[in-house]
Amino acid sequence: MDPDALAKAFVEHYYSTFDSNRANLGSLYQEPSMLTFEGLKIQGAQRIVSHLTSLPFQQCQHTFTTVDCQPSGPAGGMLVFVSGSLQLAGEQHALKFSQMFHLMPTPQGSFYVMNDIFRLNYA
Amino acid sequence: MDPDALAKAFVEHYYSTFDSNRANLGSLYQEPSMLTFEGLKIQGAQRIVSHLTSLPFQQCQHTFTTVDCQPSGPAGGMLVFVSGSLQLAGEQHALKFSQMFHLMPTPQGSFYVMNDIFRLNYA
Repeated sequence: MDPDALAKAFVEHYYSTFDSNRANLGSLYQEPSMLTFEGLKIQGAQRIVSHLTSLPFQQCQHTFTTVDCQPSGPAGGMLVFVSGSLQLAGEQHALKFSQMFHLMPTPQGSFYVMNDIFRLNYA
Repeated sequence: MDPDALAKAFVEHYYSTFDSNRANLGSLYQEPSMLTFEGLKIQGAQRIVSHLTSLPFQQCQHTFTTVDCQPSGPAGGMLVFVSGSLQLAGEQHALKFSQMFHLMPTPQGSFYVMNDIFRLNYA
């Protein structure tokens, strides 16, 4: 699978999981994983999922506009950079966001999220 | 120097160099360095600088709003995620952008840009 297709497949999987049941995102992170969410730093799969599930909205819909990817180095990692918009239930306007993921390979041939940085883009 | 201060110092240096003389950015990249600029993939310090210096504007002013950073793994790299705005000479409105850098340590104790992904955030 070519890297661009892999990156897009990951992004589709990530946001469809986020929008249907955020608690299921836990399997994409591991203990060393880091999330910086609007400047707040969180480490570890369980803490990351606790934070994402405690965000003050129930329903949301991510739409991504661009997905860029690059290999991150000899360890086989991949950097994925996303721009898109986030529609919260009951809100009139969608919020623009940018997010980057650093995916690292697992021994099972899959990937986990080593680094995750999320920012809303205020107009 | 703590990582957040280092990331901020890098970002200040990068954009002040970009805005004063883009040709001087070459020393921040190396041969394996990759830039994805609005979806266009470019590899190698010389090609990257050629692209940046050929962008169709002469004067510009970057202002950054947020800088987030995380260590990228055991190799001592650092991920830096920036949001900000870009004012081009003669244009009325600034353009919002997001950019990520993956900095890798050099044997001399400095860093070079291994990965660079830039996107304008259209409203």
